[in-house]
Amino acid sequence: MIPKAITGLQCHQCNWMIPADPFHYTCSKCGKNLDFIYDYDLIQKAWLKSDLLKNPDRSIWRYLPLLPVHHAPENTSLTVGGTPLVSLPKLSQDHHLSSFQIKDDTRNPSGSLKDRATELSIQHAREQGKDTLVAASTGNAGSSLAALTAYHGMQSIIFVPASAPPAKLTQIRQHGARLVPIDANYDAAFDLAFDWAKKEDQYSRNTGVNPILAEGKKTVALEIAEQRNWQAPDHIFIPVGDGCIISGVFKGFFDLLALGWIDHLPRLHAVQAEGSAAIVDSLTRGGEIMAVEADTIADSISVNRPRDGDKARRAILESGGTGFKINDIKIMEAQKTLASSTGIFAEPAAATAYAGFLQASAQGFFQPKDQVVVIVTGTGLKDIPAAQQGLGSIESVPADMALIEKYLASE
Amino acid sequence: MIPKAITGLQCHQCNWMIPADPFHYTCSKCGKNLDFIYDYDLIQKAWLKSDLLKNPDRSIWRYLPLLPVHHAPENTSLTVGGTPLVSLPKLSQDHHLSSFQIKDDTRNPSGSLKDRATELSIQHAREQGKDTLVAASTGNAGSSLAALTAYHGMQSIIFVPASAPPAKLTQIRQHGARLVPIDANYDAAFDLAFDWAKKEDQYSRNTGVNPILAEGKKTVALEIAEQRNWQAPDHIFIPVGDGCIISGVFKGFFDLLALGWIDHLPRLHAVQAEGSAAIVDSLTRGGEIMAVEADTIADSISVNRPRDGDKARRAILESGGTGFKINDIKIMEAQKTLASSTGIFAEPAAATAYAGFLQASAQGFFQPKDQVVVIVTGTGLKDIPAAQQGLGSIESVPADMALIEKYLASE
Repeated sequence: MIPKAITGLQCHQCNWMIPADPFHYTCSKCGKNLDFIYDYDLIQKAWLKSDLLKNPDRSIWRYLPLLPVHHAPENTSLTVGGTPLVSLPKLSQDHHLSSFQIKDDTRNPSGSLKDRATELSIQHAREQGKDTLVAASTGNAGSSLAALTAYHGMQSIIFVPASAPPAKLTQIRQHGARLVPIDANYDAAFDLAFDWAKKEDQYSRNTGVNPILAEGKKTVALEIAEQRNWQAPDHIFIPVGDGCIISGVFKGFFDLLALGWIDHLPRLHAVQAEGSAAIVDSLTRGGEIMAVEADTIADSISVNRPRDGDKARRAILESGGTGFKINDIKIMEAQKTLASSTGIFAEPAAATAYAGFLQASAQGFFQPKDQVVVIVTGTGLKDIPAAQQGLGSIESVPADMALIEKYLASE
Repeated sequence: MIPKAITGLQCHQCNWMIPADPFHYTCSKCGKNLDFIYDYDLIQKAWLKSDLLKNPDRSIWRYLPLLPVHHAPENTSLTVGGTPLVSLPKLSQDHHLSSFQIKDDTRNPSGSLKDRATELSIQHAREQGKDTLVAASTGNAGSSLAALTAYHGMQSIIFVPASAPPAKLTQIRQHGARLVPIDANYDAAFDLAFDWAKKEDQYSRNTGVNPILAEGKKTVALEIAEQRNWQAPDHIFIPVGDGCIISGVFKGFFDLLALGWIDHLPRLHAVQAEGSAAIVDSLTRGGEIMAVEADTIADSISVNRPRDGDKARRAILESGGTGFKINDIKIMEAQKTLASSTGIFAEPAAATAYAGFLQASAQGFFQPKDQVVVIVTGTGLKDIPAAQQGLGSIESVPADMALIEKYLASE
């Protein structure tokens, strides 16, 4: 077995180093978010790119030497990760690029990228001797936690605002998670879930605080690099709410650069909905991230106070990326354009990243040699009512061949 | 390149042989459904199991020598097929089996097994010089056709009954397919779609008639065999409506047995909803398949007149399988049991197959050495309202730790 090369956890704010065991969610000195720190020399000595070629496991567990747990789970056959990197030569041509690809993370077990973080957090919880995971979520994180704890035979408790639409909770309830509908908003549910886990000595899978989650999410970057034969792209477009996904993507490429497996960081572009743009606004304005009153159709990135905002900002700035803001009409248009030009049906949040790419292209942002990747983080099937909003009504036609001919000719 | 080993097409009813080119959808003599016939000796000489080990393509195209088209598409990066075969040791133990596995075909691009058939039909259409595919469908086949024609840059026209629920049509419309809502039922839409394609010299992807579709669906059997290292399981449970999936699964194992790659056919069990059980009823009663007035929550297998019924019956009988009928309450229960014990969220039709397995197990159908596979054909995310029906209402709780404690202790 390859030795575990975790040096410890470091606060991204005050740089304080703490050991990885016993585990802390946040900095024991200033309370800010932590990063896992690896001994890359040790990893380099024991793990080669060519080892990966021989590894038949397509799941995130093929990258175990770069993950902060001791073992892979006994059963990995459900296959979290290993999602397609879809090449789209026609779009590449249309936008005058050298290559255009979509990382289709709708193909995870519960339909979103969140499964990567959940899968790692479940194994981490198990190694910490815990059998119950707690989270606040009305969406992808909750359904991911419910699905994967069911698969791994663990328990989950999910705090939601009682006002959450019942359809959003159906997937969570089908998987048998314990649901706690709180008479309060999401921010309050978030804090209660965290406090509950602490009080009960259960594991917290609250997005944007626990550094394990970014470590799980970074596997999407490791896969993109490996699927591109270790040639990092020039640009990656990422939907941003709490900021945890872009932080994870950054961490993945950061690790690979430290290992010498890639030769540059891709520029990571944060795409936010206009109605929930706290992080992009802070880039434009400078200074601290300020909370907003979020209002957008892209519910997975609708966030008042980004819980991982500072690390997200660091990811954008250190990679040379930038920020884009997209209004809801453009988001809905991008959802349809994406589905009809690629076959990939994205949720509004994921379509937001594609809309950011379209906006960048229209602004002449790219060079002809550029290689671009858009990460599609979740499936459109989770929010059919949102997808219906962008479509007009349709008229029926009698069961008569001549009239059908006329109907089909009329467009 | 491995030579194409298609001998021709044979009518499953009158045994009439016709050439594969020009292509016929049905028997030119009696009008019944056809099977593709291969020269297995030719394939055996040019293609070895060990060739597959070296093939990095995880999609259905890794089985090109056993598919009735000349070439794979230029772009296969979206990855149709290559879905996980999920091992479930705890369920295996609970049911006193040697192994229990689920083939998770929810993980296809559009969320269902139908993508296998669509992918092959698009390439077949292209090789026939056609750029438009036509189908009648309100569900998985339609959304699959819409998604994959969008991906491959082809056109699709989809006939639906105008009464189809708008939510069902959203995925199809997002992918930019041309939708024709007919003032008639599904059977009429089916016939009109077939006639339209004939009249316009377009390609018909109507389920249960075109033999290409079973050839595409058979790839799920090829994958199950390969993922099990060419040990065919003893039993496979398959949801059955039109009968096309079980015919395809049979064809896959039939091909592998003919090649000598497996040593027996698994017993293929057809599971139908009680309200749509034309095929299972014909097995019990003997004689012809008679149409029913279908009425079940499992809409993907709700069928009055099974279009591929005779081939389905042959698959069941020749493999030594049997039939199971499940009522809607048991289907909904099985959906929740499956989701909460495996992490896989199946549509009601797919949960029906699992319910059939549960019924068989309760009846003492299995031997302790038995190895069982259930095929989960489509994702529950496509029909959230159906999944909600099986769940009661939930009460909210104030944002107070003591009350949350009481709430969580109360179950």
